[in-house]
Amino acid sequence: MKRKGRGEVIAFQGERGAFSEEAARQLLGANVAVLPCARFEDVFRSLKEKRASGAVVPIENTLAGSVHENYDHLQNFQLPIVAETSVRIVHNLIAPNSVRFSAIRRVFSHPVALNQCLNFFAENPQIERITFYDTAGSVKMMMEEALTDAASIASAVAADIYNARILRRSIEDDRQNFTRFFLLRRPEDADRYPAKSAADPAQWKTSLVFSLRNVPGSLFRALAAFALRDLSLTKIESRPFRGRPWEYLFYLDFLGRADSPSARNALGHLREMADDLRILGSYPKGA
Amino acid sequence: MKRKGRGEVIAFQGERGAFSEEAARQLLGANVAVLPCARFEDVFRSLKEKRASGAVVPIENTLAGSVHENYDHLQNFQLPIVAETSVRIVHNLIAPNSVRFSAIRRVFSHPVALNQCLNFFAENPQIERITFYDTAGSVKMMMEEALTDAASIASAVAADIYNARILRRSIEDDRQNFTRFFLLRRPEDADRYPAKSAADPAQWKTSLVFSLRNVPGSLFRALAAFALRDLSLTKIESRPFRGRPWEYLFYLDFLGRADSPSARNALGHLREMADDLRILGSYPKGA
Repeated sequence: MKRKGRGEVIAFQGERGAFSEEAARQLLGANVAVLPCARFEDVFRSLKEKRASGAVVPIENTLAGSVHENYDHLQNFQLPIVAETSVRIVHNLIAPNSVRFSAIRRVFSHPVALNQCLNFFAENPQIERITFYDTAGSVKMMMEEALTDAASIASAVAADIYNARILRRSIEDDRQNFTRFFLLRRPEDADRYPAKSAADPAQWKTSLVFSLRNVPGSLFRALAAFALRDLSLTKIESRPFRGRPWEYLFYLDFLGRADSPSARNALGHLREMADDLRILGSYPKGA
Repeated sequence: MKRKGRGEVIAFQGERGAFSEEAARQLLGANVAVLPCARFEDVFRSLKEKRASGAVVPIENTLAGSVHENYDHLQNFQLPIVAETSVRIVHNLIAPNSVRFSAIRRVFSHPVALNQCLNFFAENPQIERITFYDTAGSVKMMMEEALTDAASIASAVAADIYNARILRRSIEDDRQNFTRFFLLRRPEDADRYPAKSAADPAQWKTSLVFSLRNVPGSLFRALAAFALRDLSLTKIESRPFRGRPWEYLFYLDFLGRADSPSARNALGHLREMADDLRILGSYPKGA
């Protein structure tokens, strides 16, 4: 999967060294050029307006669930998914090169990261937790200010980018913390990466969104479109349609390509029942 | 729905004035006694070990999705859901009584809250954002330190509890931000609140969790159990079963009570196909 695209610039949300950048490196190699953005909406807009050639966005986390905001942007911006990858959220204790563990009295990070390392803080009561905007941003600040009694909690990529040192690896309480990311392209570039002809169709996934009115059995009838064609689902999630009581939005992933004969039949069948059916992309199944 | 229980103590995660406390007030009245806890796990343990008579936990948010961690605790602790409510996440600018808006140069809050008020900060560039552990905790700190140039962003309940003043109401960018909360009891107290006989069975919901092996059509066949009995689903969500590749955990809510004849038949039918079926509770549908 690793290769460096030509003239690639990948937009993501957060500071340099965020977990989204780790996902971008997994997908496109460690040297990929990146464009950090303040908001998810800016990430989508950067790709649409050609300030970036691709975008990497988180779509779900094993502890925190689906990122509904990015599902909304996927529908509004219509930028196709071309790849997926999963990143294990590893929190590392990172300090300037000259700072030893025994000197550390303060640790900076995003409160979600600090709260995922409670065992570490219970074992080290001499260390104070201080909240910061962003995990990677806390490493940047610590290095810029040349703090001598402080460390940060962030990804290994953040340590690399800001030339800091990892003092303790993987201090998170729960190792079952993964985030799934999508790589997006503009529609005209959707075929560029990866080569569509290369992969076995059974190793592909398709993501779609549709809405149904909530009458008994409506989802059952909708899923018949897939069951009757032996298409295997890997995700289904309902979400109340705000502003339309009794309608639900569904996120669905199935194994296969949207342009295969059975998928085309299934999607035609689903369209008879579902409103606002939108295919978000077909892409090779991640590891 | 509002009534004050006798000798009630409701556990929740966060500082006094957190949105969970707002949910507890919606469910049990403004005078309900509360027990703030550091972690979600502590909330469940407090109820199980009788330090609290009930617990209020967030289960899903319209922007951020389902709180998988609390689904895990619901399964592990087996504390039944007895009520649900939905809280609109309203962010207010809160300051000590003596502080005027023109004096404010710093605003403290949790980074998620700060990031949900970006329009406010764009319109007020003289104000610096400073991250804090907790929305309500930032109000507490500001009042304790008697800051004269600062404000916080938190719930109206936090302003009430810490005797602070709301300077600007509802400064969040997106008003479609709701969190759904569950009220939990110990199994022996599940019938205490609310009176089970009082409500129309059609106005109830039942939440359950089950797992399925991922073969084509497995979910379709599982949903037949509900569709064939005209039971209406209000939520379905799949989640990969960590450690068991190709198995999925499903969260499902349907309208009705688990002890009604049609629901009993549906659940018996579902049990033929599903592993680890667990009923998390039947409770009156929230507003």
